[in-house]
Amino acid sequence: MMRGRLYGLGVGPGDPELITVKALRLLKAAPVVAYFVAKGKKGNAFGIIEAHLDDGQTRLPLVYPVTTEALEPPLCYETIISAFYDEAALTISGHLEAGRDVAVICEGDPFFYGSYMYLHDRLAARFDAQVVPGVCSMLGGVAVLGVPLVYRNQSLSVLSGVLPEDELTQRLEAADAAVIMKLGRNFDKVRRVLGKLGLDSRALYVERATMANQRIVPLDEVDPMASPYFSLLVVPGKKWRA
Amino acid sequence: MMRGRLYGLGVGPGDPELITVKALRLLKAAPVVAYFVAKGKKGNAFGIIEAHLDDGQTRLPLVYPVTTEALEPPLCYETIISAFYDEAALTISGHLEAGRDVAVICEGDPFFYGSYMYLHDRLAARFDAQVVPGVCSMLGGVAVLGVPLVYRNQSLSVLSGVLPEDELTQRLEAADAAVIMKLGRNFDKVRRVLGKLGLDSRALYVERATMANQRIVPLDEVDPMASPYFSLLVVPGKKWRA
Repeated sequence: MMRGRLYGLGVGPGDPELITVKALRLLKAAPVVAYFVAKGKKGNAFGIIEAHLDDGQTRLPLVYPVTTEALEPPLCYETIISAFYDEAALTISGHLEAGRDVAVICEGDPFFYGSYMYLHDRLAARFDAQVVPGVCSMLGGVAVLGVPLVYRNQSLSVLSGVLPEDELTQRLEAADAAVIMKLGRNFDKVRRVLGKLGLDSRALYVERATMANQRIVPLDEVDPMASPYFSLLVVPGKKWRA
Repeated sequence: MMRGRLYGLGVGPGDPELITVKALRLLKAAPVVAYFVAKGKKGNAFGIIEAHLDDGQTRLPLVYPVTTEALEPPLCYETIISAFYDEAALTISGHLEAGRDVAVICEGDPFFYGSYMYLHDRLAARFDAQVVPGVCSMLGGVAVLGVPLVYRNQSLSVLSGVLPEDELTQRLEAADAAVIMKLGRNFDKVRRVLGKLGLDSRALYVERATMANQRIVPLDEVDPMASPYFSLLVVPGKKWRA
């Protein structure tokens, strides 16, 4: 029997129309559609593509066992999440062994900070795996902010808000242009660093870019307690006056 | 009379199916389709979307006056290219003033090193301008290489091969993961830097990712004289063993 094929499909940053023609075609043809989701939630990626599925397609939610990386000992995030990815890979390999293609849908792009990577690392050596790139949240963000991100030979740094303050400072100082992701509870620290470097006047902030509930907020009006995970800070490159 | 609307449409990295549903819809509806192109060439972006156009749509090629940034004095690239963008913006504003929407098609993403940015900077203050993000060449590249780009809280550096050797060394040394664009005649220098930093065994190389004539070549087999502009070097982030 032919084994199934594994697809990692980028479905874009939120606007359902920002899926590619290719991802949409492969999605509709997939007998099994898998997606990561928090317990009790519908899942952002699933919400983006739900309207395209028909009843004959198997939905395979992969439900995260935890919703935060900060766990009380003896619980350990790395151990728990690793076992979870092992199990998810096992479930998917069952479908692949049985000859069914599995499409794992991924918000943004599968290889740009996506959870699909952990399945790919576990399965791509044994099964035929193909990734369809998607529009990442970073580029969805600059599109709705209406600001060019990097000119000509400028360097771009993509940083996580989780980084320690001194490392964040160093990296931001060296960057021609920067995008900071994973803000959430790190927002206050990041804003402080931007202020220290005099970058706060250049920085732009957007929540849930391209989604129906998108919000663009001036930096000094952001409530750090309410900044969601899907928010971005952008320090655009200085305009090249060609 | 209603003024026309300016669209910057990302059409993706090369595979015509990697255009988004949204860009395709707006492309088909646009009375004027503009694109940058080298003299005597068809243009990569135009080639990607050509099959979708009908006879009623005006094609507006914007032909670069020069094909290299290295010009003999008294010629000056910055002066010549600036006048060219001014003129292109003027041509487009003529259509917009006359009430015709203009779609500027862009390989990859419009705000990620795209020439559309120079039109946006000239026109967005006067006209309604909307950017539709696209799959950038960098993510097309890692998809066909089959390698996750950045894990979890890793930092990504996007660099131009044009950078001086010492700056390139410094930035690559500090990066968790890196993508180097604009190789071409800079290839030898970049390979030397990767070797010096011991990154050559981790680095992957691809030419014209997702295009029909895509080539994946081991780093030590690349002919530096034949490396095209649309080639990429990727230093993927170290696998996070979740």
